[in-house]
Amino acid sequence: MHLNELAEGGGEWLRGTGPESDIVISSRIRIARNLSDFPFIRKASDADKKQIESAVEQAVKSVSQWKDHVSYVNVNELADLDRQFLIERQLISRELAECNGVRSVAIDHDEKFSVMVNEEDHIRIQVMQSGLDLFEAWKQIDWIDDCIEEHVQYAFHKSLGYLTACPTNVGTGLRVSVMLHLPALVMTREVDKVFRSLHKINLAVRGLYGEGSEAMGDFYQISNQITLGKSELELVQQVNDVIPVMIEYEQKARDFLARESQQELKDRVSRAYGILSTAQTISSEETMHLLSSVRMGVNMGLIDLDIPTLNRLFIHTQPAHLQKMHGAALDIADRNIQRASYLQQELRNHKN
Amino acid sequence: MHLNELAEGGGEWLRGTGPESDIVISSRIRIARNLSDFPFIRKASDADKKQIESAVEQAVKSVSQWKDHVSYVNVNELADLDRQFLIERQLISRELAECNGVRSVAIDHDEKFSVMVNEEDHIRIQVMQSGLDLFEAWKQIDWIDDCIEEHVQYAFHKSLGYLTACPTNVGTGLRVSVMLHLPALVMTREVDKVFRSLHKINLAVRGLYGEGSEAMGDFYQISNQITLGKSELELVQQVNDVIPVMIEYEQKARDFLARESQQELKDRVSRAYGILSTAQTISSEETMHLLSSVRMGVNMGLIDLDIPTLNRLFIHTQPAHLQKMHGAALDIADRNIQRASYLQQELRNHKN
Repeated sequence: MHLNELAEGGGEWLRGTGPESDIVISSRIRIARNLSDFPFIRKASDADKKQIESAVEQAVKSVSQWKDHVSYVNVNELADLDRQFLIERQLISRELAECNGVRSVAIDHDEKFSVMVNEEDHIRIQVMQSGLDLFEAWKQIDWIDDCIEEHVQYAFHKSLGYLTACPTNVGTGLRVSVMLHLPALVMTREVDKVFRSLHKINLAVRGLYGEGSEAMGDFYQISNQITLGKSELELVQQVNDVIPVMIEYEQKARDFLARESQQELKDRVSRAYGILSTAQTISSEETMHLLSSVRMGVNMGLIDLDIPTLNRLFIHTQPAHLQKMHGAALDIADRNIQRASYLQQELRNHKN
Repeated sequence: MHLNELAEGGGEWLRGTGPESDIVISSRIRIARNLSDFPFIRKASDADKKQIESAVEQAVKSVSQWKDHVSYVNVNELADLDRQFLIERQLISRELAECNGVRSVAIDHDEKFSVMVNEEDHIRIQVMQSGLDLFEAWKQIDWIDDCIEEHVQYAFHKSLGYLTACPTNVGTGLRVSVMLHLPALVMTREVDKVFRSLHKINLAVRGLYGEGSEAMGDFYQISNQITLGKSELELVQQVNDVIPVMIEYEQKARDFLARESQQELKDRVSRAYGILSTAQTISSEETMHLLSSVRMGVNMGLIDLDIPTLNRLFIHTQPAHLQKMHGAALDIADRNIQRASYLQQELRNHKN
């Protein structure tokens, strides 16, 4: 598989068809694992990294079900643009893209999972599901974890559990996260209050691209902070339990807006669509902001467009995606022109 | 003629087809006259005003060429909305609408001229021509002035000339003005410098609705300040001479923008069109501002729409016009909704 084959498609997490998909974009679980015979990455030599990489590659390639369905990509040899592309697609982390040395990623062709090698830990497995489907994601990742463990020896401590480079991941090595689209809570300025209550029950809130990233386009990732002292299923359950509450808050905020400021809401959604379909140059931030309004409008029945198309636009208007589609590197000014032209064409094709 | 018949149409000055009509909206001349046998309006009794009104009405109705082509409207008896409508159409002044007592206006059905009675002076005649056509306007107003003078006695002083209520109008009683659309000079921030040079040669700059009004939609009226010591034709000539210079300045600013910021310009024009065609609620100010960008875009070949349609939209989206078309009074919020809906419909119909 060549990365360009991914460029035109859309991954599982942006399919936009899963349960509760008007508010829940995707469910994602990742686990951190390390090989028992090697030091953690921060202490690992280049030779160690090579051996880790080779062991994981062997393990991945030994899983018969993945033959022809999973590609093994050497991240160290990728062009910057391709690394950025994989970040935008949520298939690798910013850390994996930006660190040095031997590192790789195994990518499922349906983009339902990826396995990063030599990131902060030796192995980071992540599984994505469209919409709210954490238990399916857990089932998948548990199976993938078993598949790999058949071929390698994980670092495991009988009272602490899985050992990880950062103490915050020790135990289960599990991060369970759900990406939500919360434009109405942002518009009604209730989002900060809601997030404070999540922090109190030890849940973290992050932006579209994970740790340290800004919340763009009103997308937020909610995830567990604690990985120790609870079973994997308890951690999945904790995040899963809070999502219906978040959905209800967002829904109530949407109902409030529809009731109290119907006209302003329609105006905001309609103008956002108008600008997206007529701009001749447009930044990534403005695009996210406007697409967010349009997406809410579609879900509220104010405008007629399909959600999978919209979800795709969120990703395909990101800098690396635009450049991959264009087939060449572009500076910021040219990207903004290219983005506007792409949006016009897509919105013209997909308006019902 | 009923005022509603005017509502749907468009007057001469917004026809948008005269000479230099991409930058020059209209040419307008008005003259101030007073009857010799009555005090100026500020000192006139109600009985005086009635007699003045009656004398002018007789004069107007005695002009055989105007039979069936000119309506005589009692402004005192008009609804506020109708007065506002006539202001927006530039057929009466804000002063005539807002003062009290017996007052009226004779309106040419083609809206090429109007005669206000009992405004600041007993008689204010104004003639409008689309585009740059001051000498034709002068020919017309000179003839109208003669027609009226056949039936009334003007207050005239052999060394001062025509006597007027305000000393600034004494002499010829003439104001020669040209309405220009100067969006590029506004965008390049050169407009203030240009206006300062006009002030130095005793020309005044006003907004769309004359004295004291804001410049909306980048429309500016340039007119003479001096009415004494020069002949009428010299005053017309003075304003006429400066217009080609103004056109050249605006054209150079447009050329500069097209050369140096082609993309931003196209973006501005296209987005303005996008917002105008999709907004669900929009204020008069924002409409003027956006229409101004679109109008410039049409003149620069960046977007395909016809100028008469655009000129009409400038006027028909004004508050009183909207309410007349709607057939009922509307509060601001409802006007903003009505305006958005009207714009959508018109732009859909007229986009080539």
